[in-house]
Amino acid sequence: MVVELISVGTELLLGNIVNTNAAYLAKECAGLGLSCYYQSVVGDNWERLKAALTQALERSDIVILSGGLGPTQDDLTKEAAASVMGMELKMDEESFKRIDAYFKNRGIEMTENNRKQALIPEGAMAVQNDNGTAPGVIMEKEGKRVILLPGPPGELKPMFEKSIAPYLQSLQPGIISSKTVKICGIGESKVEDMIQDLIAGQTNPTIAPYAKTGEVHLRVTARAEEEKEAKKLIKPVVKELKSRFGQAVYTTKEEVTLEKAVVDLLDANGLTISTAESCTGGMLGARLVNVPGASKVYKTGFVTYSNKAKRKLLGVKKETLEKYGAVSEQTAVEMAKGCAFAGKADVTVSVTGIAGPDGGTPEKPVGLVYIGCCVCGTTVVKKFQFIGNRAKIRESSVSAALTLARECILKYH
Amino acid sequence: MVVELISVGTELLLGNIVNTNAAYLAKECAGLGLSCYYQSVVGDNWERLKAALTQALERSDIVILSGGLGPTQDDLTKEAAASVMGMELKMDEESFKRIDAYFKNRGIEMTENNRKQALIPEGAMAVQNDNGTAPGVIMEKEGKRVILLPGPPGELKPMFEKSIAPYLQSLQPGIISSKTVKICGIGESKVEDMIQDLIAGQTNPTIAPYAKTGEVHLRVTARAEEEKEAKKLIKPVVKELKSRFGQAVYTTKEEVTLEKAVVDLLDANGLTISTAESCTGGMLGARLVNVPGASKVYKTGFVTYSNKAKRKLLGVKKETLEKYGAVSEQTAVEMAKGCAFAGKADVTVSVTGIAGPDGGTPEKPVGLVYIGCCVCGTTVVKKFQFIGNRAKIRESSVSAALTLARECILKYH
Repeated sequence: MVVELISVGTELLLGNIVNTNAAYLAKECAGLGLSCYYQSVVGDNWERLKAALTQALERSDIVILSGGLGPTQDDLTKEAAASVMGMELKMDEESFKRIDAYFKNRGIEMTENNRKQALIPEGAMAVQNDNGTAPGVIMEKEGKRVILLPGPPGELKPMFEKSIAPYLQSLQPGIISSKTVKICGIGESKVEDMIQDLIAGQTNPTIAPYAKTGEVHLRVTARAEEEKEAKKLIKPVVKELKSRFGQAVYTTKEEVTLEKAVVDLLDANGLTISTAESCTGGMLGARLVNVPGASKVYKTGFVTYSNKAKRKLLGVKKETLEKYGAVSEQTAVEMAKGCAFAGKADVTVSVTGIAGPDGGTPEKPVGLVYIGCCVCGTTVVKKFQFIGNRAKIRESSVSAALTLARECILKYH
Repeated sequence: MVVELISVGTELLLGNIVNTNAAYLAKECAGLGLSCYYQSVVGDNWERLKAALTQALERSDIVILSGGLGPTQDDLTKEAAASVMGMELKMDEESFKRIDAYFKNRGIEMTENNRKQALIPEGAMAVQNDNGTAPGVIMEKEGKRVILLPGPPGELKPMFEKSIAPYLQSLQPGIISSKTVKICGIGESKVEDMIQDLIAGQTNPTIAPYAKTGEVHLRVTARAEEEKEAKKLIKPVVKELKSRFGQAVYTTKEEVTLEKAVVDLLDANGLTISTAESCTGGMLGARLVNVPGASKVYKTGFVTYSNKAKRKLLGVKKETLEKYGAVSEQTAVEMAKGCAFAGKADVTVSVTGIAGPDGGTPEKPVGLVYIGCCVCGTTVVKKFQFIGNRAKIRESSVSAALTLARECILKYH
């Protein structure tokens, strides 16, 4: 089945807010096995709203509209959708009671405007809103479906999860299940090369690669009558991917990020980590601290952006800096070793590079980054040449540093 | 004139990325006085891309497409747009030279695929890309205009600013000019309260507030026959805003960020800075290093996530940690003072707080953050109670730390 998303709101057209709802709904729908070919944004305008919905219904089976369900005169989505679907609006007693209770619970008087929110197209289903006053709506007619959701993400997301996802799931034969194999340290094109044969002949399950900075995620999705059956289809594919990518697979859990994988690996081995950063200026530390509870393993971070700080805090030798430069294999090694001494951790990671936009030379171009890792006395250093602007080079460096730390722990501990 | 935005990319349809480009372009176009009634998203699909562009050209004067200019076979935007506009693709020598130089500068071999990026529709203008390989394109035909921009925000934004905005400006009667007054340390609603009278009666120029984390930007926009005249209209409004918000205005320059304002202020006063971070884990250092050339003023960063690191590296007293806890006024003060000693800088900033999701208590709830600042011997500490999730609390902390550093330098130096 084909779904289409229409986001309604002048604030989106003016760029005052970013359309995170569309990304959320798109991802959820893809996860449910629905195809989506179009997303659009229109303002709170009667004619344009109706035209957009009419066109969407011509080319898609299900249209999800978000926004424009508020109590004010500007909010037209429900009225326009009812008009396109040829339905009359009627007061829904259940919704009215809920809205009334919502206000009473907060000690606020319900205004006349809010009564409008309890109007539901005749024959449609009202969907309760646990986090606001606007109910959602599901309309069905002649094999087409229109779903209306409130605009605030704090209302839209829980409503989708609780009521809309099960509804969409019920429309489809069987169920959809998926698992993500997360890979670090191998580039997107190489990953795709390595699974071309699997992708070429795939039907059920399917494998979809998603490139992230320094990572590639492979989402394996299966459709079956029952959850158990879908999982059975997924299992051998995940196993095959794991065997092809080996240790580069850092997790198959949705909620585990690369930094969490590193923190968990350290924790499981009773190890601690400290960091020494130059061009990333603290981003590596900040990534580790993204993980709640990182304090168990993360001891100290040194941001040694200046040569003087590299010398004083990490004991990098003056001669090393003079002879090889701050961006060199030798400096990365001394930073990692010095960090092990000063930061008193089992594992240390150092980053030094040229993030640009200035400071590049033909021998040491912008994007050149050395990453060192010292695990229980063994020091490894890797050279990278990243592409992109200052921010991208620094992000790539952090991902590479986490990947190297993980590799070294697995290898040398 | 009416503009319409089409974002191209399967990753948008799958919800793997959020469409920040659309928000950026919408805002910029609104600032240029263009009306926008529709935004849409389509995948890298020949037929649907052409259909979307054809429809957009029927109802709008200018269509801006972003994404799908990459080197792979999937990238079809330029080919589809040229087909709709009835133009042939031709190798553009200038673009080819630029792409070649881009790779040479990075010491990488240019692939055959990248040659495709130098193909430009005949009669169209190539727009140079300072941050990547894909040139932008401007096509004009029979009063309609199609603009193609690369998808990565780090390429799209600078290209829009440098080349596309002046081009769009040139199409319109008179000109639009704007200036942004950037304010830190005052909340959005308070800022809006303080300028309600100015906003109420505004016609030309207009004032539009944009809330950022820890900042509010007021964009003053005027329309006039000539640039000079527009600037004359803007000047008294900016002056009035500066007088109302005083030192909270950290810049009126488009390119100056809060971290750049702090780095520039330090540099102008011949001062250096070091940082001591707990819950932000290096994010404050990373923000400072966002500024190219921050090495002039940024000496050292300490990430002391554990109590032990706070003691060993910054000399925070064991008794202080035991009596008041790691998240306390006293610890923040000792971290800032210790950092001044260990980091040998004129200005030091410390951050310690509870970023959550766990670790909160009724006395010290999630979101409680203390920020200390020591300037040439004087130490100031401020208490904050931030709202939001772990990431939001940490971002708010970093903005507050930069704001406090700025305040203290202005006051105590």
